[in-house]
Amino acid sequence: MTDYEIEMALQDSQESFPLETRPVNLSYWNTGSEYQSGVRRILKYDTAQDLFDYHYYLPDGTEKPIALKFGFSEADCQKLRIDPLTQSTIAISSVIAFLSRQNMSVGIIRPAYFTVEVCCKDFKVPYTIFDDYEEDINEKFDAQRLLDSGCQAFWFTSPINSMSIYFKDHVIKEIQKILDAGKVVIFDESLCMNGMELARKFGMQENLIYIYSPHKTLGLQGIKFSATVVHQKFYDEIDDIQDYYGGSLNYSCQQGASHFITKNFDDCLAFYKDYYQKNLKIVREVIQKYNFAHVSSEIAGHYAMIFLDWPIDDEVFVNSMKDLMKKSGYFVFPGIMQDFDTSKRFCFRINLLLNHRDIEKGLNVILEYLKNESEA
Amino acid sequence: MTDYEIEMALQDSQESFPLETRPVNLSYWNTGSEYQSGVRRILKYDTAQDLFDYHYYLPDGTEKPIALKFGFSEADCQKLRIDPLTQSTIAISSVIAFLSRQNMSVGIIRPAYFTVEVCCKDFKVPYTIFDDYEEDINEKFDAQRLLDSGCQAFWFTSPINSMSIYFKDHVIKEIQKILDAGKVVIFDESLCMNGMELARKFGMQENLIYIYSPHKTLGLQGIKFSATVVHQKFYDEIDDIQDYYGGSLNYSCQQGASHFITKNFDDCLAFYKDYYQKNLKIVREVIQKYNFAHVSSEIAGHYAMIFLDWPIDDEVFVNSMKDLMKKSGYFVFPGIMQDFDTSKRFCFRINLLLNHRDIEKGLNVILEYLKNESEA
Repeated sequence: MTDYEIEMALQDSQESFPLETRPVNLSYWNTGSEYQSGVRRILKYDTAQDLFDYHYYLPDGTEKPIALKFGFSEADCQKLRIDPLTQSTIAISSVIAFLSRQNMSVGIIRPAYFTVEVCCKDFKVPYTIFDDYEEDINEKFDAQRLLDSGCQAFWFTSPINSMSIYFKDHVIKEIQKILDAGKVVIFDESLCMNGMELARKFGMQENLIYIYSPHKTLGLQGIKFSATVVHQKFYDEIDDIQDYYGGSLNYSCQQGASHFITKNFDDCLAFYKDYYQKNLKIVREVIQKYNFAHVSSEIAGHYAMIFLDWPIDDEVFVNSMKDLMKKSGYFVFPGIMQDFDTSKRFCFRINLLLNHRDIEKGLNVILEYLKNESEA
Repeated sequence: MTDYEIEMALQDSQESFPLETRPVNLSYWNTGSEYQSGVRRILKYDTAQDLFDYHYYLPDGTEKPIALKFGFSEADCQKLRIDPLTQSTIAISSVIAFLSRQNMSVGIIRPAYFTVEVCCKDFKVPYTIFDDYEEDINEKFDAQRLLDSGCQAFWFTSPINSMSIYFKDHVIKEIQKILDAGKVVIFDESLCMNGMELARKFGMQENLIYIYSPHKTLGLQGIKFSATVVHQKFYDEIDDIQDYYGGSLNYSCQQGASHFITKNFDDCLAFYKDYYQKNLKIVREVIQKYNFAHVSSEIAGHYAMIFLDWPIDDEVFVNSMKDLMKKSGYFVFPGIMQDFDTSKRFCFRINLLLNHRDIEKGLNVILEYLKNESEA
């Protein structure tokens, strides 16, 4: 099954229940009601909104404060430009259009956001998948293998897609070798938690392209903005492409950009950290009871990937989840939807911004069900 | 010069003036203060906004009323699906990704929105430009010429880009021949005035793809939504692609979709018609004094294209406009920015939603300046 088919099958099944008994998807991308009401109590932003004009730029005077908040230095700010977009999805497609125009081949380090590979195919950009790195990238990563592939550009996702794991010194040193070899490196940090940006490690180098969208992680899709950060050298070309692919900015992007550089953003971020950490503690406690299930010790963010000791076929899993929806009111999506190779060992994502009770009860029933199935 | 270079050169020059004496661009895409305050007095929409969730669908129960308001019949509604997007720009790129996956070559009937040709290039979709049709398409259009080209899909823009001229019976009969020959036809009606949609003429046929964004024409960029309307047959494929290229919807799209089917949208539309018609009357009066300048008698909308009897080189024109900014406080963009071939005869666009006085005074000084330059 393709990930689209899996999503549609599980979603159709979920929606066949009446609203009041609709099963909860623990892998869901939206946040729970408790988290939302907590943020709603804290959030303050300028709600004034322009109804009329097309907008293409960040609000006046915000570019440098935004760059500094991403962690770029004063010196970096002299070299970089920020191109704002409505969504990171458009940042991805337009950066791949840029690589296409440069006739570059791309090495994609999996797991990546699902748009990346599809765009490479559609734009006929030659690409190589590197799928040996998941949570163990911090031990195993080897730049030479990437350089030997002959690719001219390399696409990294930080934190590791749906794992909330960040690159440590070893990976950072290796990626610097790739940059020193004159290759282009893209850091898709759309789901990066503010404070953990790779900008703090790599700064603005000529061949680096960063993608950010700091409200996404906080679950604030209503006032998010996306930003492509590039060296001046590439700015005109990228800006031209993003005009073709991005069109104008929704006004909520301007609101998001202005909000990002206020202290209120930091207050929301502090609440976010507290909230996911409580759920992560619950997850660790539940997991301890099931010796076939594992979760990384390095999680810093609201997505946790739970790995099992065995693989499960997609179709078998979809049917299990349909059954579990009826029996318990909970289900999860398989990790293939986040670009994980579930043929080796099965995995699924948990969203730590869901309600505490759903995380505790839901994870218990899912692991109990999978345990019973494996023993049947 | 490329259209991007022209835009940047004129914009830089404009922005070198202090805000209070900044020259007015009569070709501008944004509307004037008088029009905006008029709409602001009428506009009513539900300002409640979700801050948290990702949105991918139209608000519940709005799909059919929206289709009916585009002019589709009850019977059409059984056959069609609507895929909402944040912006028409994304509708264009994703439809071209779709044509790319179908291995189709595309005939682009100029003038088209500038994203179309660029996306074909980037996605490596073979294309043929048909640039013999502008305001005279209603007399000269010949389907056989298009069919002879061997293209499998044809891209039409209605109304004719930046001219506010709609297709009449002759063109409609000819386009039906193209559909009857089994070709795919795309109608980019992003800037169509509600009530003038080609859906009313062609209904939902298997090989038709429509793009709409009804608030754009009214200058309401803050609550606009875009919609791709396709036959059920193509829906899954298009929906999958638009998930990759479009991402989630800004909440303002949901507000726009809900607003479109209220009577308040019609009230805004009535004000719009009154407003542009007043300015169009002014334009016709000014043009009458200059026998070298022409404007179509068929305009129904807020963009009018003014044609001169002679061509003007882009670089010469940019320098003239820089000079005119200083002398008079007005300027225009050349028609090349709207995909017109200005090497035959020069043309420029006027936005009839600007303030009445700017239209009257500005058009007078521009035509007077061009007249004097041509006589020098």
